[in-house]
Amino acid sequence: MSEKEKREYHSRSSGIFFETKRTLFKKKSPFQEIEVIENPYFGRVLLLDGLVQTTEKDEFFYHEMLIHPAMVTHHEPRQILIIGGGDGGALKQVLRHPIEEVRMVEIDPDVIAVAKKYFPWLLPSLEDDRANILIADGKEFLEKSRDKYDVVLVDSSEPVGPSVSLHKRNFYELIKDRLAPGGIACAQMGAPFYQGEALKRAKNDMKDVFGIARFYLSPVPTYPGGNWCYVYLSDQVDPFDIKREPPPDLQYYNLEIHKAAFALPNYLQKILANPPHPNIKV
Amino acid sequence: MSEKEKREYHSRSSGIFFETKRTLFKKKSPFQEIEVIENPYFGRVLLLDGLVQTTEKDEFFYHEMLIHPAMVTHHEPRQILIIGGGDGGALKQVLRHPIEEVRMVEIDPDVIAVAKKYFPWLLPSLEDDRANILIADGKEFLEKSRDKYDVVLVDSSEPVGPSVSLHKRNFYELIKDRLAPGGIACAQMGAPFYQGEALKRAKNDMKDVFGIARFYLSPVPTYPGGNWCYVYLSDQVDPFDIKREPPPDLQYYNLEIHKAAFALPNYLQKILANPPHPNIKV
Repeated sequence: MSEKEKREYHSRSSGIFFETKRTLFKKKSPFQEIEVIENPYFGRVLLLDGLVQTTEKDEFFYHEMLIHPAMVTHHEPRQILIIGGGDGGALKQVLRHPIEEVRMVEIDPDVIAVAKKYFPWLLPSLEDDRANILIADGKEFLEKSRDKYDVVLVDSSEPVGPSVSLHKRNFYELIKDRLAPGGIACAQMGAPFYQGEALKRAKNDMKDVFGIARFYLSPVPTYPGGNWCYVYLSDQVDPFDIKREPPPDLQYYNLEIHKAAFALPNYLQKILANPPHPNIKV
Repeated sequence: MSEKEKREYHSRSSGIFFETKRTLFKKKSPFQEIEVIENPYFGRVLLLDGLVQTTEKDEFFYHEMLIHPAMVTHHEPRQILIIGGGDGGALKQVLRHPIEEVRMVEIDPDVIAVAKKYFPWLLPSLEDDRANILIADGKEFLEKSRDKYDVVLVDSSEPVGPSVSLHKRNFYELIKDRLAPGGIACAQMGAPFYQGEALKRAKNDMKDVFGIARFYLSPVPTYPGGNWCYVYLSDQVDPFDIKREPPPDLQYYNLEIHKAAFALPNYLQKILANPPHPNIKV
């Protein structure tokens, strides 16, 4: 691979490539390798440990679908927690709702510094009085604080490197404990086409923790496998019980897309199959 | 690019790569360059003029979504026409329904020869008495024959090379004329993320020809941009009026996926916007 190009393997023998007009930033932080490149089509691309996290051109596909399903189905979302999300894309979407406070707990201050400098949506969000950024490990933060949240959004990287602890059962137990009554958590769950087994394990971890654990899908052009997977977790809220209109001027999300996202193809229904359980609706 | 790898550009500066374990076939036919490679993850990959048409591992995503929406909403699909589709993937899906006859009109005999040899699903379909393969230009075939069809499926390659004529307005007028009463046509329409302008033009071509022209989406892992686009064309059939259960043992398609596929994200609704028209429901 020449320096003129970045590539991410999706399988061991295939993947995506981006021609690199310029490398704007490259640093090995204490947590991961952070890189920002400029590609003529996608604009600025953030890679962590070589995996594409976000690009200027297609970030809205992912961030709108991670944030708005929980926000429009909660009865009154006021206190919001984002775990991870250092690039600021999730924060921007949360701030489109009339919330009281959003805390973003990001483990790696270098990611935030990079986003401030290279991704245009973070700075305006930071100037919003409702936004509070904390530098901490998401799991440790939840263990130490007893605060409750209406909505928790897990915008993690893949279950390698600093995000390993965010993909374990006891992390989901912690989230459940920190949800206020009627609370909802949503998390990104990876690429169903490539990571079926990981999804199956995650579902088994979640199915005894939450009354409702529904997986949903949406495409992200620069993520592996066409569709990306998310999970909607709650004890009592039906993800189809829409409480309010979404914010105006979204590029991807609307209420038809919301409902459509919960339809799962046969191959994925099969992967997620498990013995009948009265409280699980996957 | 070494001979050890195939790559397809999705934009001018990004795309997908496949490591090539072996090149099984390579020939410049009178119509296009045909190539079959073997990739460790996707298995056999068919490329026409360098563009991925189908792979063993993910062909079901595309072929099931091209075929079954029309087949389950037609009141009684007996005479079926496939235009293109030389790899045989669409034919296999059509034959899962209790039809009388399916004609497949493929322009390039070399594609059929290659599929017979390298793609395992074509041969059993050819042995089915209901299947008839014709070697002809799809548009010329429709011009010469007056036969009518219940369902017409356009499984073309991109609007370059031999498929150019299959992406024009007069081709859609021909299809409409060859549909029996209550007939339905579905066609692949490309990558909405990359080809928004082409989609807009196609929609303008179709909106005066058919009473109902609804675009729908589904992801294909090896196609550009996450989601792929299809169009459902009819004068009177509502794509939500399901007439029968889909065939058993499908890997992707089910009736929830069918309905979900017609939900369009905001950016695509915007691209497809046009002055109000009483008969168009896009």
